[in-house]
Amino acid sequence: MDTPAPLTDTSDASLEPVSPEALVPEAPPKTNQEYVEELVKKARAAAGKLASLSTTIKDQALTAMADGLEAKADDLMAANEKDLEAFEQAKGGTAMADRLKLTPTRIKDMADGIRQIVKLPDPVGESLKMWQRPNGMLVGRVRVPIGVIGIIYESRPNVTADSAALCLKSGNVCILRGGSEAIHSNTAIASVLSEAAEKAGVPPGAIAFVDRTDREVALALLKQDKYVDLIIPRGGESLMKTVTEESRIPVIKHDKGICHTYVDADADLAMARTICVNAKVQRPSTCNAMEALLVHEKIAKAFLPDIVKELQAAGVEIRGCAKTCQISPDAKPATEEDYGKEFLALILAVKVVKNMDEAMEHIARYGSCHTEAIITNDYGRSLRFLREVDASAVMINASTRLNDGYQFGLGAEIGISTTRIHARGPMGLEELTCSKFVVYGSGQIRE
Amino acid sequence: MDTPAPLTDTSDASLEPVSPEALVPEAPPKTNQEYVEELVKKARAAAGKLASLSTTIKDQALTAMADGLEAKADDLMAANEKDLEAFEQAKGGTAMADRLKLTPTRIKDMADGIRQIVKLPDPVGESLKMWQRPNGMLVGRVRVPIGVIGIIYESRPNVTADSAALCLKSGNVCILRGGSEAIHSNTAIASVLSEAAEKAGVPPGAIAFVDRTDREVALALLKQDKYVDLIIPRGGESLMKTVTEESRIPVIKHDKGICHTYVDADADLAMARTICVNAKVQRPSTCNAMEALLVHEKIAKAFLPDIVKELQAAGVEIRGCAKTCQISPDAKPATEEDYGKEFLALILAVKVVKNMDEAMEHIARYGSCHTEAIITNDYGRSLRFLREVDASAVMINASTRLNDGYQFGLGAEIGISTTRIHARGPMGLEELTCSKFVVYGSGQIRE
Repeated sequence: MDTPAPLTDTSDASLEPVSPEALVPEAPPKTNQEYVEELVKKARAAAGKLASLSTTIKDQALTAMADGLEAKADDLMAANEKDLEAFEQAKGGTAMADRLKLTPTRIKDMADGIRQIVKLPDPVGESLKMWQRPNGMLVGRVRVPIGVIGIIYESRPNVTADSAALCLKSGNVCILRGGSEAIHSNTAIASVLSEAAEKAGVPPGAIAFVDRTDREVALALLKQDKYVDLIIPRGGESLMKTVTEESRIPVIKHDKGICHTYVDADADLAMARTICVNAKVQRPSTCNAMEALLVHEKIAKAFLPDIVKELQAAGVEIRGCAKTCQISPDAKPATEEDYGKEFLALILAVKVVKNMDEAMEHIARYGSCHTEAIITNDYGRSLRFLREVDASAVMINASTRLNDGYQFGLGAEIGISTTRIHARGPMGLEELTCSKFVVYGSGQIRE
Repeated sequence: MDTPAPLTDTSDASLEPVSPEALVPEAPPKTNQEYVEELVKKARAAAGKLASLSTTIKDQALTAMADGLEAKADDLMAANEKDLEAFEQAKGGTAMADRLKLTPTRIKDMADGIRQIVKLPDPVGESLKMWQRPNGMLVGRVRVPIGVIGIIYESRPNVTADSAALCLKSGNVCILRGGSEAIHSNTAIASVLSEAAEKAGVPPGAIAFVDRTDREVALALLKQDKYVDLIIPRGGESLMKTVTEESRIPVIKHDKGICHTYVDADADLAMARTICVNAKVQRPSTCNAMEALLVHEKIAKAFLPDIVKELQAAGVEIRGCAKTCQISPDAKPATEEDYGKEFLALILAVKVVKNMDEAMEHIARYGSCHTEAIITNDYGRSLRFLREVDASAVMINASTRLNDGYQFGLGAEIGISTTRIHARGPMGLEELTCSKFVVYGSGQIRE
């Protein structure tokens, strides 16, 4: 009994003092599958309580979340520093690294974004319509939360705060799954938010964050159609593809925008110039930026030289059809691939068309049904363009950059949906709800 | 050369006369994949034209479709006879065979159903809202068709006619995929409908029918997310499961209904009896029929004996909790499995509960969020039940059987959606549309 037990021996015979933790058999680590199941069950359990939480408590929680982000700014930036180091070592990117970066100003912007959501009306409980049936029963439709929403996103950490706040205000539990490149930042933000929310009376689990970055975890999440009601992917093409192919849960995509502006024969050319420059240059990396310009042949000579010069002066590379290059010899010739391409950069495809029909055919063929604009002063053609062009937003005499929740007056948005069901275009608080029928009867039966 | 060629020899050396057809090299039969791709591309091409077809032409086409069904009644019944023979040989079913059967009356009902849809307002083009932004731009939301809708269904051939008519009126191309048991009937109905529609000016391909019954074809269809915008499955559990697991296209499910009626302590017991009998007996095979009855313990003794007797007299088998069996000894004891079961038959699970909280917990646990009703005269509890119970329709003092498009005044319905996005509950013409934003600008740009 006096001989010391070998180091690897943990039998009772050991004389070494045993820490209390060591007496509890260590739980085997959760598999990714178990991890996801626990997460979604907890989320579902929170959904019922969250759905009937009062606006007052939700708004108090949102305010506490905003304050929490500002109070913990240093911790958030320290976590962000880890992501930035890893990112720069791995990829050496600069534009991407900039999107990833948290600064005191950006943290304040995130907090202010949440405070904006406090000011928006709560969509839950709104009675959309009520009518009486011949048998005397009153039938109504009332807005209710969708339930549990999984948000799968990439890079910018502010998406964590935006999504959590929009889901909370609309009474939805969110399961946030950010990209591995921002895992430290997102984890830190999510934990500040969910702590602040719980303290303010939001049920635990209502802001859930997936802190494992394994691909297997995301795939397992996409199969949980019993517990999760909706998946919103926000990111690049490969993310969209995986989510579409793997999800058993309904998906509302925020997919790419290949947006056109068609300058008609009867356009006010000065207005057309202002709009086109804005649509291309104001923020070229966004989905509602113009990627291709279609110009009616009648005004091509009057319009193209100036706009090409102005865009080139703003740093835009012009890739034109044969006629464009003839009129504006500084333009590079476009290839077939340049039409229907989402450049997300200072590049613009330009094509001269015979008439509006050719413009609409081009849009139908190469567009992505995101945002399409006509510049014209012709009454009939403007209305026909509005009616016949298929896109989440169709515009007369306005910049495609205006297809946006704030610009449309919907308040904050979770993104611009390119899916044709449930919500199309900017998706605000109302689009994060569904409805239920309510019936006030007095003994009615089915005859 | 004079020796006759062997029977299997089709070489040029044969002296047998060659038919003109044999000279044309036979096209290899399309693979199922090619077949589906051709179908969906044609459907997508029709969608653009159909979306802007006038109400007048759509209504004329619908009327011609209804007339066509009646004119071809004999052909339809001959096709139906083939299905019935195959079905009876294979399965010897009777109830199922009855659902499959076409009679002159049922054909007239199908035609009249289409004529009802003619009378409903066209949802396409409706301006839902329009508002002005501070920069002077007018922003509006307009109803547009969803696009291409795949409907995958089983047994009753009238679904072919209903679905085609609802999709046409709402400007959607439909791809109909019925069950193999009704393939002859459905093919005959679909070909009458699409011929009549085309003659009236509907673009070819707008009513597409999948005339191959291979499972592979359905699976290939579910992957066509580039061409098909929505899948609506109408059928049993195994169909729902396959569609959910395999589809890359958004799915709106018309899934099972496990509907409860809770008879509160303050219920008018005579009203409760009438409603419960109606909810269970009027048509037990439907998704909105009551499957379980919850009774407040305070009124259990006053209510249960009579209702049990009345339901039993109507042929209903009662499966009760211990208290129910104590009060009504004729009831059979319920097992745990009887709660949360969709019987779709004259069977009813009954449970005595302590209070409304227990009733609501039971509903949350065992219900399917389809239709839930409370019978009470208590103001506070009635409103709390409406607010807190999560279902496509929540009712006070009315039969669950009333959760129906016609009963709610929505006109015809394509079914009752159990999906929480886009449309929840009865899905009429409006729910077969989405919206687009339209912008009337005067030179606005993004600042």
